[in-house]
Amino acid sequence: MNVDGQKYRTIWLAEDGWAVEIIDQTRFPHSFETTRLENLQDAAHAIRSMQVRGAPLIGATAAYGICLALRADASDVSLMEACSTLLETRPTAVNLRWALDLMRKALLPLHPEERAAAAYTLANQICDEDIATNMAIGLHGAEIIANIARTKKAGERVNILTHCNAGWLATVDMGTATAPIYMSHDGGVPLHVWVDETRPRNQGAFLTAWELGKHGVPHTVIVDNAGGHLMQQGEVDLVIVGTDRTTATGDVCNKIGTYLKALAAKDCGVPFYVALPSPTIDFTLSDGLQQIPIEERSGDEVRAMTGRTAAGSVETIEIVASGSDVANPAFDVTPARLITGLITERGVLEANGKAIATAFPDRISA
Amino acid sequence: MNVDGQKYRTIWLAEDGWAVEIIDQTRFPHSFETTRLENLQDAAHAIRSMQVRGAPLIGATAAYGICLALRADASDVSLMEACSTLLETRPTAVNLRWALDLMRKALLPLHPEERAAAAYTLANQICDEDIATNMAIGLHGAEIIANIARTKKAGERVNILTHCNAGWLATVDMGTATAPIYMSHDGGVPLHVWVDETRPRNQGAFLTAWELGKHGVPHTVIVDNAGGHLMQQGEVDLVIVGTDRTTATGDVCNKIGTYLKALAAKDCGVPFYVALPSPTIDFTLSDGLQQIPIEERSGDEVRAMTGRTAAGSVETIEIVASGSDVANPAFDVTPARLITGLITERGVLEANGKAIATAFPDRISA
Repeated sequence: MNVDGQKYRTIWLAEDGWAVEIIDQTRFPHSFETTRLENLQDAAHAIRSMQVRGAPLIGATAAYGICLALRADASDVSLMEACSTLLETRPTAVNLRWALDLMRKALLPLHPEERAAAAYTLANQICDEDIATNMAIGLHGAEIIANIARTKKAGERVNILTHCNAGWLATVDMGTATAPIYMSHDGGVPLHVWVDETRPRNQGAFLTAWELGKHGVPHTVIVDNAGGHLMQQGEVDLVIVGTDRTTATGDVCNKIGTYLKALAAKDCGVPFYVALPSPTIDFTLSDGLQQIPIEERSGDEVRAMTGRTAAGSVETIEIVASGSDVANPAFDVTPARLITGLITERGVLEANGKAIATAFPDRISA
Repeated sequence: MNVDGQKYRTIWLAEDGWAVEIIDQTRFPHSFETTRLENLQDAAHAIRSMQVRGAPLIGATAAYGICLALRADASDVSLMEACSTLLETRPTAVNLRWALDLMRKALLPLHPEERAAAAYTLANQICDEDIATNMAIGLHGAEIIANIARTKKAGERVNILTHCNAGWLATVDMGTATAPIYMSHDGGVPLHVWVDETRPRNQGAFLTAWELGKHGVPHTVIVDNAGGHLMQQGEVDLVIVGTDRTTATGDVCNKIGTYLKALAAKDCGVPFYVALPSPTIDFTLSDGLQQIPIEERSGDEVRAMTGRTAAGSVETIEIVASGSDVANPAFDVTPARLITGLITERGVLEANGKAIATAFPDRISA
């Protein structure tokens, strides 16, 4: 998408054709900077430190991480160790495992001398396929928005609530939850997005608001506490969120707080959709609450916040009474029963095992 | 309660016997400061700027505001204007109206020369009654906690989640939601409190965590998004929140985000209690969602956050992408159907009109 008039993806090959460049998302919204990854450790660090985040982008970065590792050492041991190192960077994102499995299975049978070039080809394909997937999600989701828009009076907007950032910054381009929004907006549908701040890392206020703003989409940032009230008051027409990991039965693991919005949507009769690229489906899982490990991240994310002062400097401040303990579970699981539909690249599905299996028979056996 | 070993209320008469002193709660948790109120405008400012907050404390401050106004001018006009000025400081808190009605009705029939002294007597009574009310709420709530504690194995704690600050800092002393917690803790019941940060003003992280910490109550601060997940995982035994305004039918208006926690509690089978001093009941209201106006506060509360840097200075930082709109509804309404019980000074009631009317027949006709 565009940043100050220049077209960007979130990850791309440098001009030298081998190094990988990314947008450093830890600098948002205070500055827009790109970073160069030159080896496996750079790639692992980029994922671990959340310079890149969002399930699809994590997968793409891991794929390029394999490229960089094989460029230095294309042996079997190097390949396996690179997969292992990258897999450990984030415990929840299923795309990470998916991309690494895909790379390992394709590359291990090759002669070491052929592996690096093949890895780059594969990683490039993963990126192109991510964008194609998001375009398809966008088209299917835009139909849902169009149907709601038809019920509106002249001058009324479709109000969409989203949580965290499943925007283009979380993918290679377009985004998942945002793809229907960008397509509808570009197609002239009057819409407005309620952007959950998304504590503790503020991906909504920092990233989603930033990217919607750069694209000219009307939006309003709210604290995470406010969405239920807005739904009660009829101010939300639908919710669209992303997912980090989805069970074969349609339970959705997404950023902490998603479950609360799904409950409110159910209680208020507001449709709750999950934009779901199929790589986020983990067909080995049938019960999200029991089976998905929830990453407990550093309490510093809760204790401190970073932002720009009126004087222009970037400062980190403490925002919890000193001496208090903190806990920081990073994700929660929204049970399938609370989900109106899964917007996938193959259409909008009911959130249940049968609908998912019918739409993705090839993935089950994969 | 104690602050560094010294006993405090949140509001008290100065040594001169006429000025009013308060803890300036806008300075939390970075510093502990008290402020002196000498006239009506000081009192109105203290409420409006949230130097004092919490329904019971707002009521007490308004009562002393009348004292200060009458001390300067005890005429009918002065009394009526003081009531009007104070009533406009915060639109949601029903205690404000309750305290001002009580003062006006008692003082207007008196000779102007008698009014100031009578006002101080009344305001002191309001404070003493608030504490007595909270002690009674504490006793009734402590029974609920004791019943849960009996189901625990040795070494297990009762885990209580609370939202915002309905602690002693929100009242004259003891608190409402915290009264059962302080009493149980002091009585030797092993317990632990999950403290919602409570964006955008962070009353949980700033105030509740501070006061629990000063009293030695084990507690953990979490972002507002986390409570649902903790309930799903069985980490919460009960929820106790306060209320700013309650309908005669048991709908509860409390800090924004309370509704989301009530939904999660219902979904997870966790008891959800509201600590409810009867002055917060508005017997003129029967439908909280339709009838309670929700205060929309300044967007600056969402855009900016204030805290202490590692270097020790207090800084305010911007935390929303520049150019984005913000919205800031300050309260939401939790429908009675989601509430397990109302912990009042007259016992634990079901959240419905019949139970409330039966417990408070004297208030209905008042």
